[in-house]
Amino acid sequence: MLAARGGWRALRRCASLPRAARLRVAEALRAREPAEAVTVQGWVRSVRSQKEVLFLHINDGSSLEHLQVVADPSLENRDLTFGSAVEVQGKLVKSPHKMQNMELQAETIRVVGPCDIWSFPLKMKERHPLEYVRQFPHLRCRSNTLGSLLRIRSEATAAIHSFFQDNGYMHIHTPIITSNDCEGAGELFQIEASSEARESAEKTHFFNVPAFLTVSGQLHLEVMAGAFTHVFTFGPTFRAENSQSRRHLAEFYMVEAELSFTESLQDIMQVMEDLFKTVTSSVLSKCPRDVELFHKYVAPARKTKDRLEQILKSKFMTVSYSEAVEILKRASQTFTFKPEWGCDLQTEHEKYLVKHCGEVPVFVINYPYDLKPFYMRDNEDGPQHTVAAVDLLVPGIGELCGGSLREERLPFLESRLQRLGLTDAYQWYLDLRKFGSVPHGGFGMGFERYLQYILGVDNIKDVIPFPRFPHSCLL
Amino acid sequence: MLAARGGWRALRRCASLPRAARLRVAEALRAREPAEAVTVQGWVRSVRSQKEVLFLHINDGSSLEHLQVVADPSLENRDLTFGSAVEVQGKLVKSPHKMQNMELQAETIRVVGPCDIWSFPLKMKERHPLEYVRQFPHLRCRSNTLGSLLRIRSEATAAIHSFFQDNGYMHIHTPIITSNDCEGAGELFQIEASSEARESAEKTHFFNVPAFLTVSGQLHLEVMAGAFTHVFTFGPTFRAENSQSRRHLAEFYMVEAELSFTESLQDIMQVMEDLFKTVTSSVLSKCPRDVELFHKYVAPARKTKDRLEQILKSKFMTVSYSEAVEILKRASQTFTFKPEWGCDLQTEHEKYLVKHCGEVPVFVINYPYDLKPFYMRDNEDGPQHTVAAVDLLVPGIGELCGGSLREERLPFLESRLQRLGLTDAYQWYLDLRKFGSVPHGGFGMGFERYLQYILGVDNIKDVIPFPRFPHSCLL
Repeated sequence: MLAARGGWRALRRCASLPRAARLRVAEALRAREPAEAVTVQGWVRSVRSQKEVLFLHINDGSSLEHLQVVADPSLENRDLTFGSAVEVQGKLVKSPHKMQNMELQAETIRVVGPCDIWSFPLKMKERHPLEYVRQFPHLRCRSNTLGSLLRIRSEATAAIHSFFQDNGYMHIHTPIITSNDCEGAGELFQIEASSEARESAEKTHFFNVPAFLTVSGQLHLEVMAGAFTHVFTFGPTFRAENSQSRRHLAEFYMVEAELSFTESLQDIMQVMEDLFKTVTSSVLSKCPRDVELFHKYVAPARKTKDRLEQILKSKFMTVSYSEAVEILKRASQTFTFKPEWGCDLQTEHEKYLVKHCGEVPVFVINYPYDLKPFYMRDNEDGPQHTVAAVDLLVPGIGELCGGSLREERLPFLESRLQRLGLTDAYQWYLDLRKFGSVPHGGFGMGFERYLQYILGVDNIKDVIPFPRFPHSCLL
Repeated sequence: MLAARGGWRALRRCASLPRAARLRVAEALRAREPAEAVTVQGWVRSVRSQKEVLFLHINDGSSLEHLQVVADPSLENRDLTFGSAVEVQGKLVKSPHKMQNMELQAETIRVVGPCDIWSFPLKMKERHPLEYVRQFPHLRCRSNTLGSLLRIRSEATAAIHSFFQDNGYMHIHTPIITSNDCEGAGELFQIEASSEARESAEKTHFFNVPAFLTVSGQLHLEVMAGAFTHVFTFGPTFRAENSQSRRHLAEFYMVEAELSFTESLQDIMQVMEDLFKTVTSSVLSKCPRDVELFHKYVAPARKTKDRLEQILKSKFMTVSYSEAVEILKRASQTFTFKPEWGCDLQTEHEKYLVKHCGEVPVFVINYPYDLKPFYMRDNEDGPQHTVAAVDLLVPGIGELCGGSLREERLPFLESRLQRLGLTDAYQWYLDLRKFGSVPHGGFGMGFERYLQYILGVDNIKDVIPFPRFPHSCLL
């Protein structure tokens, strides 16, 4: 029986431990009272054999910290090496060391699975660079850094779901396979049944029409926002950008939300800011040691920790696109792309703006009408004609979130789609504006970009669970 | 400002309502005290105009129940129709009707978005069949049945995440695009960059190797189970089965979990049973009216409600595959496929077994070695050679979950992969058995099958958000 399953919950309820408890490492480390007859299972992270005592460090993935096991040297055996899997029984006692609360005095040590240390690519007590461990997608989760990353990723995922649930949003699984390309942004992946099936079907499409992997769940969320006032999705999205850059993935996760009866872009921005702050606070408080590992050892120069704490305390800044262009024009810096009203902001421009604002997140709002997709709401201004769009720029990353009010007015949308020759393709989208259409808006946030930002990680491939270049394609 | 955002949380904290509160329908219906200056936004589900009073029913997706609005007939206008979107301001008062707690006495009614009722495919107070609304994937979320389904789906999703978090499992996003076909089960979807990109790349593969949509995250979870004792994933999986059946989807969601240091199949079965019971109890208690709609009106003949309540109280049954074959051989019923040890259980067999056991969920364990994939753990028995595999069969559906202990012993796995000619492809999988390999096991549960079962829904396309035949491919 795997008692840990029940034990995980039980520990939260009672401070003292039951007899013969099977404990996870995190539970053992947090225990308030000594306990007899405790079993801990995990993988050996270090072995130190002294004349009178044998020290082991055991990790089972439940925390960055290892549990120290103290044993009689007679319990040593040749299979008890770095990387081996063990089951240790003994007494949980207060540790004499300042750095740890409890340690385990072993009575028995059983090697459950030995480790071929000569061919094991990870070495004891070595801090392997991320580039090195990326070569071993099936083993790198046994390194400290990836263990921390995966705990943070899991915690951030849970915090995102909680944020939306606590605020009454309904979760929608938007389709992965779709015939819609959303906004024509980015190169698509096309799907077909694998070769055998294709031949038998004589080269017709599996779904009768070309089918793609989704680039965004926005339009599907908008459908749902016609019946539910608050909806969100958090799923995989895809871009076939054959980029070897450190900034792009073919497969990445997006958090997207839509709000109905929303007439102001400020409402959307407030949700973006609340989401960022709530999730970040939750991760910082629930995985402090894991986050610290990144801030201290992976990217120490960035001072991410101090900056994050500052950001969580202050209100995000807002500048309009037009103001932003003015700021860029006044800049003493020379840009490769000359800033000009009506042109896209380039990475160099975004970096300057964020720096200009004090290296804090900055909302840029009201972009030129002609730069943005058809579904964004016309601000009906002029002569510089804009739409109610917003991008959230953050230091070191650039665009973290993008959103807009959506054009809910049938005549505006009809004429815009007609000019683009898209009326037939978006008949269903026009339909939504005929039957109880309401002002609404929404946004999306790239999950991996978010993790990169809060952890100060340079290469986006180091914040996903399976990093095989150029993507998680090997396993 | 969209005050409802804060209001959703606020209502749980305090029983009396703040002034000028923007409330969701569910909040207004649950309010304990009358309140002045309340605003409710939503879509009109019925209009009933009497000589002295105008009645509206408003729904905003927050509950199956509508909020009744009572207004002076002078507030009527020609845009105030079924399907229109409105904002109503007034007083929230105790309702004189037994069926509802509160109603809204309107002071103003603003039609935010009119509805072209002549072309709107949904009609007032009509109970449209699921087949009918399935034709309108962009509008059917405005029907009661789909509203209920989506609330249940959202709640079940949250309950699944909570179950695993509460039990200390780590969430892993397993890859969607993979070069691995997991177990060779089912036809795969292959992906390439869309046609333009393919031409420019001169027909080489985007990822250099053929890439597919995942059919299961199991092997990736097994990687993680080598560093974390409890992991789970809950994401989309794909099968290119060009089936027009009511039982299959090309894209569907799977809950999958792996547990390390697990030597008994019973442990895996216990988690499956706990997951089923915890999530089902949560859905039944949080969405009672939504579930009732399905049990009463969509599939009344099935008596799903009574059966579910019975099941939640009793322990699931277990029979071995060998016992199951004996039961089938003794059956008076004539089967199309003659039951024989060593052959797969057919749907007719599964149905008989479930009926034989009293229409309750039944675990079938220890299947023939030759029927199951290479990764399942050899029971080393004989002459009827089996593996430690389990399927959970449920009434009306057949297989709801499948799992096994995994073969953690290198020599067993090596010889099996060699016989299958798969040693090269699974070198990384063999590797996992060289470096601290531990007994482990896991299972998967189809999310849509689960929803079908607890709701008694016949066609699996009626439990997904976007049902366009044969898949959610249109929007």
